[in-house]
Amino acid sequence: MSRPKIVILGAGYGGIMTAVRLQKQTNANEAEIILVNKHNYHYQTTWLHEPAAGTMHHDRTRIMINDVVDENKVNFVQDTVVEIKREEQKVILENGELDYDYLVIALGFEPETFGIKGLKENAFSIRNIDSVRKIREHIEYQFASYNNDKEKKKERLTLIVGGAGFTGIEFIGELADRVPKLCNEFDIDRSNVRIINVEAMPTLLPGFDPELVEYAKNILERKGVEFKLGTMIKECTEEGVILSKDDQVEEIKSNTVVWTGGVRGNSIVENSGFEAMRGRVKVNKDLRAPGYDNVFVVGDCALIINEENDRPYPPTAQIAIQEAYTCATNLLRLIRGNEELASFKPDIKGTVASLGEGEAIGTVGNKKLYGSTASAMKKIIDNRYLFLLGGPGLVLKKGKLKLF
Amino acid sequence: MSRPKIVILGAGYGGIMTAVRLQKQTNANEAEIILVNKHNYHYQTTWLHEPAAGTMHHDRTRIMINDVVDENKVNFVQDTVVEIKREEQKVILENGELDYDYLVIALGFEPETFGIKGLKENAFSIRNIDSVRKIREHIEYQFASYNNDKEKKKERLTLIVGGAGFTGIEFIGELADRVPKLCNEFDIDRSNVRIINVEAMPTLLPGFDPELVEYAKNILERKGVEFKLGTMIKECTEEGVILSKDDQVEEIKSNTVVWTGGVRGNSIVENSGFEAMRGRVKVNKDLRAPGYDNVFVVGDCALIINEENDRPYPPTAQIAIQEAYTCATNLLRLIRGNEELASFKPDIKGTVASLGEGEAIGTVGNKKLYGSTASAMKKIIDNRYLFLLGGPGLVLKKGKLKLF
Repeated sequence: MSRPKIVILGAGYGGIMTAVRLQKQTNANEAEIILVNKHNYHYQTTWLHEPAAGTMHHDRTRIMINDVVDENKVNFVQDTVVEIKREEQKVILENGELDYDYLVIALGFEPETFGIKGLKENAFSIRNIDSVRKIREHIEYQFASYNNDKEKKKERLTLIVGGAGFTGIEFIGELADRVPKLCNEFDIDRSNVRIINVEAMPTLLPGFDPELVEYAKNILERKGVEFKLGTMIKECTEEGVILSKDDQVEEIKSNTVVWTGGVRGNSIVENSGFEAMRGRVKVNKDLRAPGYDNVFVVGDCALIINEENDRPYPPTAQIAIQEAYTCATNLLRLIRGNEELASFKPDIKGTVASLGEGEAIGTVGNKKLYGSTASAMKKIIDNRYLFLLGGPGLVLKKGKLKLF
Repeated sequence: MSRPKIVILGAGYGGIMTAVRLQKQTNANEAEIILVNKHNYHYQTTWLHEPAAGTMHHDRTRIMINDVVDENKVNFVQDTVVEIKREEQKVILENGELDYDYLVIALGFEPETFGIKGLKENAFSIRNIDSVRKIREHIEYQFASYNNDKEKKKERLTLIVGGAGFTGIEFIGELADRVPKLCNEFDIDRSNVRIINVEAMPTLLPGFDPELVEYAKNILERKGVEFKLGTMIKECTEEGVILSKDDQVEEIKSNTVVWTGGVRGNSIVENSGFEAMRGRVKVNKDLRAPGYDNVFVVGDCALIINEENDRPYPPTAQIAIQEAYTCATNLLRLIRGNEELASFKPDIKGTVASLGEGEAIGTVGNKKLYGSTASAMKKIIDNRYLFLLGGPGLVLKKGKLKLF
């Protein structure tokens, strides 16, 4: 008798957690589980702003897949997904192909540049381990070069972060912590360095409690961050950015522009013919793609509407992990012949944004958190995920154990 | 009564050692001693290949000038020398000028590119703290970028060192040690990296004992270094190097070309009208510039002929330090009215070239040294200099204390 074959594409939060839940809950030989991922490691996307700024080593954000996945239950294939052939129930990989009975699409995000000219070509993005260590090394190289130039180039020391959402603010907090260390390392006066945050909305962290936003802005400004709010990036060139605010145009020269202003789902989703908005499939309540009873979508490629305000939930790690739980439950029901699937309902426990070493803001339930309390809570949230993924051993190995 | 004014230009081996000898030997108010240097630190030029490769932090090679120079005896001026006005006994600095009764020119070296096309524009050089940390960061950036490129670029991982003299070989030894660590850091297979040494002479380390040279070549080849001996760099372009050997032309693409193939004295020397060959003044036996009884030249800007073979001594740290001793002695004699000056005679105690961690070759007296013995001897030589410069305290602070 042939076992049903479950193929999970991507080992980000949604994908790896689906695999781990399935390996815990399936009986021996109940299903063939295949996990496909480009790298042989999972990484903490929500931590990537730290290695990008150089305040944490990238290895602390990555977890080898075979450290959390049991080879006896999950077959790991290291390869890159090229296309999903929906009608043939087949996945094309760079080095082969796989057929499936059930598919989980957990292919993660891509930067969304909203058609802003030159952004794709000239800006960095905080995307994966490869991209963030490149940002770190690029910034270091700019600082290292500064004193070698006969004519000092301010653009080497002008760091521009596009977007004041979660990632942008967390990144800029780390950057503000790193800059004094870089100045020390490369004999540069701090006053020559600019850290500029550009955001089209009139506030940073849109959607956050205004009191907390004010706190965050003050903290970051005290660390030397300049905010340009209500300001559009019109163009990103090889020389820097062209900004516009109230019909005023300003050009800032910079060798380092990091775009954090938008994400979208993986373009493989729409290229494979799924109906999608910016790579995100508006899934049914049971997380299946409309019209495909054997295809689940979780994480950044899934679009879920919050019925309370009729707007999509932001694609966070927290939601991706919760989706993985529902997805694994529903896969189990399907392979066990139970057609009554569970509905996904996010349970937002809280949201905390870090502002660099020892500082953060957030809400947990109705409670507002600031400063070191918020910072400790952020680490507790991070550790909780590691616990869910790999138990206490993984918390000890990769956790943030120094809470204060 | 006005004291004679001694101005020392440059705080490299020759300059700082002259200052330190004078501060030890002069009585209070016997002379006004002024030391001029671009930076507020001295650095160990002979160690720079290590921070260039990234195997040692650059701060270990630098010594703050006020850590070894007594402010009560030596007046330190941080400024950059622009020109020496010989006839007016005046030195033009970027931010001022100084007149002198006695002058010590210790302005160090510049890379000599022998007119090879594109080398000045496109190759790095191991020259000072600024230049070596730029090399380190450049190489790291190339490795960090490699996995981000859709089409992998071999030139990012092709490291070319021009010149197989002392600096070239010592640098390539460190580089060979660093590359496996870089591969590990950036998830790159070692087999994709090339470390190539190009030398116009048919051997590496020309002038060294052939048996030792053979040993060095084997050690480095075992670490993965490719030697292209008897090979000229015809041109260095933005894309790499064009080599020629026996009328065969070969182009190697590389983003990292480090030129170590030649040094010359500081061009300020000839631009100020001193008779010089490649920035080096053929000094009298007492180290004075011909025709200028109050101007001494030491270190890389001094040319001294070895009478045994009628060839110039190579401008080493060892000789610069010995010159500083003679120079200080002669300055003392002059200010004390003794016109009978000491003659400089180098006393070559030994020469050791390191080949990376724990490996070296060298001669001390007539004895050949290999491997860990030579490596320990190298460190003893380095520590001895620190002892001469700043006593046991400086050895403890900046010395290489792990001999084996």
